[in-house]
Amino acid sequence: MKKITLLGATGSIGLQTLDIIRQHPEQFELYALAFGKNIDKAIPIIKEFNPNKIVVLDNETKRKLENFVNHNYILAGNEGMIEVCVDPTTDIVINAVMGSVGLEATLQAIKEKKQIAIANKETLVTAGHLVMGEAKRNNVTLLPVDSEHSAIFQCLNGENREEVSKIILTASGGSFRDKTREELANVTVEDALNHPNWSMGAKITVDSATMMNKGLEVIEAHWLFDIPYEQIEVILHKESVIHSMVEFRDNSVIAQLGSPDMRVPIQYALTHPKRLELSQSKKLDLVEIGQLHFSKMDMERFSCLGMAYYAGKEGGTMPTVLNAANEVAVDLFLKGRISFLEIESMIDKAINSHITIKSPDLETILEIDQQTRKQVTSYIN
Amino acid sequence: MKKITLLGATGSIGLQTLDIIRQHPEQFELYALAFGKNIDKAIPIIKEFNPNKIVVLDNETKRKLENFVNHNYILAGNEGMIEVCVDPTTDIVINAVMGSVGLEATLQAIKEKKQIAIANKETLVTAGHLVMGEAKRNNVTLLPVDSEHSAIFQCLNGENREEVSKIILTASGGSFRDKTREELANVTVEDALNHPNWSMGAKITVDSATMMNKGLEVIEAHWLFDIPYEQIEVILHKESVIHSMVEFRDNSVIAQLGSPDMRVPIQYALTHPKRLELSQSKKLDLVEIGQLHFSKMDMERFSCLGMAYYAGKEGGTMPTVLNAANEVAVDLFLKGRISFLEIESMIDKAINSHITIKSPDLETILEIDQQTRKQVTSYIN
Repeated sequence: MKKITLLGATGSIGLQTLDIIRQHPEQFELYALAFGKNIDKAIPIIKEFNPNKIVVLDNETKRKLENFVNHNYILAGNEGMIEVCVDPTTDIVINAVMGSVGLEATLQAIKEKKQIAIANKETLVTAGHLVMGEAKRNNVTLLPVDSEHSAIFQCLNGENREEVSKIILTASGGSFRDKTREELANVTVEDALNHPNWSMGAKITVDSATMMNKGLEVIEAHWLFDIPYEQIEVILHKESVIHSMVEFRDNSVIAQLGSPDMRVPIQYALTHPKRLELSQSKKLDLVEIGQLHFSKMDMERFSCLGMAYYAGKEGGTMPTVLNAANEVAVDLFLKGRISFLEIESMIDKAINSHITIKSPDLETILEIDQQTRKQVTSYIN
Repeated sequence: MKKITLLGATGSIGLQTLDIIRQHPEQFELYALAFGKNIDKAIPIIKEFNPNKIVVLDNETKRKLENFVNHNYILAGNEGMIEVCVDPTTDIVINAVMGSVGLEATLQAIKEKKQIAIANKETLVTAGHLVMGEAKRNNVTLLPVDSEHSAIFQCLNGENREEVSKIILTASGGSFRDKTREELANVTVEDALNHPNWSMGAKITVDSATMMNKGLEVIEAHWLFDIPYEQIEVILHKESVIHSMVEFRDNSVIAQLGSPDMRVPIQYALTHPKRLELSQSKKLDLVEIGQLHFSKMDMERFSCLGMAYYAGKEGGTMPTVLNAANEVAVDLFLKGRISFLEIESMIDKAINSHITIKSPDLETILEIDQQTRKQVTSYIN
């Protein structure tokens, strides 16, 4: 029985993780969960799974929750997250929070040699060198949950890492893949949230439309698979059927394919190196799909991807700035405060004004993260 | 240094194997070679690689060869093939002969626990239970060279066999994929030999056009990967870019892709579980290819595939009859003695008139093989 700590239980990945746990009660138990403020979603989860420990964003949310559930172990804030991550009973921590909020707890969990399933790109983007350094020291394998990284992870099964010549990430192109830059000027939040293939949270759906999502994935892949940026390629593949590929030095390419169902990579992270049945999940039917399309990624059209490559190669605090600027800008877009194309221009401004600090420690990263958020917010005032 | 015995050195796979050996003289040495009658092709090979032992089809060919090369170890016939296969110096035997002629030598090599790279479908089709039984007893892994089986073999790297739910073989459709059955009535040998994707020997190119090649591959896959016929699917994929796929029980699909270059699977069989650089081989460029197509396999249109599934499921001597009838019929077609559609009708007649012998031993198989050849030849007299 694997005892699970789930960070981000009320989000899209969190809910699908709970579905996996529900389907395999003989394998998994929800030991602890953390969520932000969404009490309405959290109450039925707590009642169904009866976790030993609960963490919420802050004391205010804690007081509110206590009006609805009778539970004697409710914690709040970062301290609470760290406690449930390092808890000796926990076998595996699933980091499915939004943004970089789970970073410190994840680092602490790695130090305690917990298995880590990582559904949160920002943790690796903003502090990849710290997270992977800690993972190496503690001999912890990070299990990717993102469909692309899970694909690569699966393609590398039984292979030698030093024989990899290239990682090929596929990108659907997001909600606006067929629009020109001119047409992007007037798109709405509603348009942006209408992703062609995947049903996901709002932030990641906007990130798909700007292609920043793929940019964050490139940086994540760099860290997870210890591969130079020059050997990471992104191609457009609008059907999202091939989730990603690995090319080896003998020119053989291994790919992982599937229907768009995040429960496949989530479950794989929980069961690796084994695979379990996954009921109510659609099997891939290539005959029904008929055609798969591939085209070149246009870095001019999708300038966020170019910025991500730049920030990744620059390293140090630059990816932290990229990520924080993006989080703020997307939030402002979702709130209707800025236009779609202003997301890119704000990120561009933030990375251009930043002077990289090399090999930053956690404190520096958190400081730069906060500074960037303030700075980007100030752009609209 | 891996010492290689190569059966079928002058054929298409043989020549490409020699190219791999040529590229990696630090890894591989041609210890012995066998060929049939093609002295013209063999002479430069012998001069370049200077193998310790040579085997030819018969004493007549041996005498002819001795006029051209000064070599003190030239053997003839099946006995000769067996000798170079069980030779203590040999590390790996590559069976790349045409048809079922290499069967006995391969079985003997397995008994001596040699590594076996198998490029010859007929060995497994005609005597799968004997070959795999011997391989199991001697703990020998058969390394597939066929691009489809190498693909599956690669997809299974690091995976658990019992978690496989389906093997999906892709078929290009061969030279006549866009023709109706009516149009097939008048096709010529020249038309049949014009394969859209792969440059191969004549027999296998015709087998691709009749879809018998895929049928033989289905039977081969059944034996190599110990999987029931019900879990082997064939789909049409005209670009031959995805060489084959494996679906697992969590609905994740792993595929192997590449440019059409047989040296990739040949080299993989020689280097497994490692991969070496492969120079002068074209990297896969999905953007350049643009689109991949998939469609349902029509068993009416390609009746040879249906016959192969039937023979495989029936088991015993039935696949031997299927294979022998096919070899004779294709030979007659290549010689202009029968029409393209008569290939199928002759095989159909042969398998319908055969009463299956269950669990045949090698002697019975060889006898049924000879009987079938005589019988099918008699159809045109």
